Amino acid sequence: MPHAHRSTRGPMMTDGTPLRTLDEDDLLARILPLFGGSPDLVVAPGDDAAVLLTSDQTVATTDTAVLGRDWLDAWSSGADIGHKVIVQNLADVAAMGGTPTGVLVTLVADPALSLEWVLDHARGLGLACAEAGVAVLGGDLSSAPAGVVMVSVTALGRLDGPVVLRSGATAGDVLAVCGTLGLAAAGLRLLETGSEDRHPLAVERQRRPVSPLTAGPLAARAGATAMLDVSDGLVRDGSRIARASGVVLEVDLGALEPDLAEIRAAVGVSDALECVLAGGEEHSLLATFAPEDLPPGWRVIGRARPVARGERPGLLVDGRAVAHTGWDHFRGS
Amino acid sequence: MPHAHRSTRGPMMTDGTPLRTLDEDDLLARILPLFGGSPDLVVAPGDDAAVLLTSDQTVATTDTAVLGRDWLDAWSSGADIGHKVIVQNLADVAAMGGTPTGVLVTLVADPALSLEWVLDHARGLGLACAEAGVAVLGGDLSSAPAGVVMVSVTALGRLDGPVVLRSGATAGDVLAVCGTLGLAAAGLRLLETGSEDRHPLAVERQRRPVSPLTAGPLAARAGATAMLDVSDGLVRDGSRIARASGVVLEVDLGALEPDLAEIRAAVGVSDALECVLAGGEEHSLLATFAPEDLPPGWRVIGRARPVARGERPGLLVDGRAVAHTGWDHFRGS
Repeated sequence: MPHAHRSTRGPMMTDGTPLRTLDEDDLLARILPLFGGSPDLVVAPGDDAAVLLTSDQTVATTDTAVLGRDWLDAWSSGADIGHKVIVQNLADVAAMGGTPTGVLVTLVADPALSLEWVLDHARGLGLACAEAGVAVLGGDLSSAPAGVVMVSVTALGRLDGPVVLRSGATAGDVLAVCGTLGLAAAGLRLLETGSEDRHPLAVERQRRPVSPLTAGPLAARAGATAMLDVSDGLVRDGSRIARASGVVLEVDLGALEPDLAEIRAAVGVSDALECVLAGGEEHSLLATFAPEDLPPGWRVIGRARPVARGERPGLLVDGRAVAHTGWDHFRGS
Repeated sequence: MPHAHRSTRGPMMTDGTPLRTLDEDDLLARILPLFGGSPDLVVAPGDDAAVLLTSDQTVATTDTAVLGRDWLDAWSSGADIGHKVIVQNLADVAAMGGTPTGVLVTLVADPALSLEWVLDHARGLGLACAEAGVAVLGGDLSSAPAGVVMVSVTALGRLDGPVVLRSGATAGDVLAVCGTLGLAAAGLRLLETGSEDRHPLAVERQRRPVSPLTAGPLAARAGATAMLDVSDGLVRDGSRIARASGVVLEVDLGALEPDLAEIRAAVGVSDALECVLAGGEEHSLLATFAPEDLPPGWRVIGRARPVARGERPGLLVDGRAVAHTGWDHFRGS
């Protein structure tokens, strides 16, 4: 009974009034009030485009969620998906050292999708934006073939300090994380096996990830040399920093013991290791710093060293290479 | 033989190497070089987010194209769709008085879609951006169920002068258009009836619309009181200005004679009228000005007057109301 496991009592995707019975203006009139404004929003949605107050440099990123690939109706409510797609975009802004300011949202949906689901979804989106002080700048609604629902978000942010790329880590830096590791992946395993009660928080993080957004710009100002958010897993994302920076990142497995301990009882020893090393959708921040620059709220899990002769840049866990087990979109592996 | 009617000899959507045989990094390595840079692009795609130089106010908009609803493989090449989705977004920026500066592009596609189509599409996108001096800031690639292909674009722009809303038209203003009317709709009719040879330019405009982008910010500085781009047809879009501004827009059918004459021989008298009044996807600019402010390149097609007692704001053609025949996404009417 997957229905019973949904995090909220939000409507199922086809329960209620089908979108095809509404015209677009009616639908927008129902949705737009669910989005808060922002003092930075000069022209709100409803015209050809919105206008946002910006500074000298604007961070821009986009990320999409597709029904069946990124979520299942049985596991996530519309509000959950709204929350998740916003957080995963805002985390990318924070990982550059930016402060998120606005989003644009596109919903492409089967006209059989229910109005009730869409409104629940919009509430989730609106709430996640309000929590982060972010304005909804606009969006687009389009119909799609039967069974298709996808939400695409573009997030904008301002840079008040330096930008932090993936490529700036240098030998001697510490590798540090702000936030949890493996919790969202453990939640996914629990949903897959219908055993959500074994770790409700992990399931909640899978449905509604939490990213330490304000830590991004603070880390940038503290001197982070490289940073990203953990969306494809520690090994895969850490390897990206290592390769972009031309260093080897040595992760100490012992430093991950708190993360492993958190989920070991729920998913078992082997899966806990897999979740912590390779679990995606966590949206914690991973960064490198000169040791003396480490800001509060970050914990050291390893260090950067030069690439040895005959070696390639990459990430090692307790001195050993670990297979990349992150997600590849078109191959699904 | 719809294949023979395609505007270019670009590959069909499933001819060639399926996306599922490539990994995401390989695919990105093929696509990204097709996008030019821009002096405003501080951090190029490839990190968590891009960074763009911006001014005090940034215009932001988003619009999506879905296979089967917005295009057919038999009628449009990948490059055509790339061109079109860029132009329709940039036109929205121009219609606010903005100068487009950057776009983010999301492709959600059936893994059976061919690499060759995607590269053709990316070339079309890149060329349309280069023509407008716009940077590709980033994007996202996701897989979709069988048969589904959609492209979602978010466009950003800068405001160097005043912003122009839909709501500023006042009685006494002239209603003016910059660009053509009805050509793209006539092209669609010719594609539908397999008679492209009757007006190749109209077919070309359907596939690759042209928007007078630089006229937008110039109109704003000249004092345009209301403006939008014609995406859903003169009647429907003009009515939006009328309702937002609380005026009646009186269109003189005689002023549309050049537009009617252009396509009358190709599609017939009745369809020509329908195309000029209700044809969407044209992306010409429609605006109101105080008569003395009309900039060069614009032609007057009507005027704004006060709403009479018992009357509602709206658009009249030769004094008569015309049914809204524009497109509604979820109802398809």
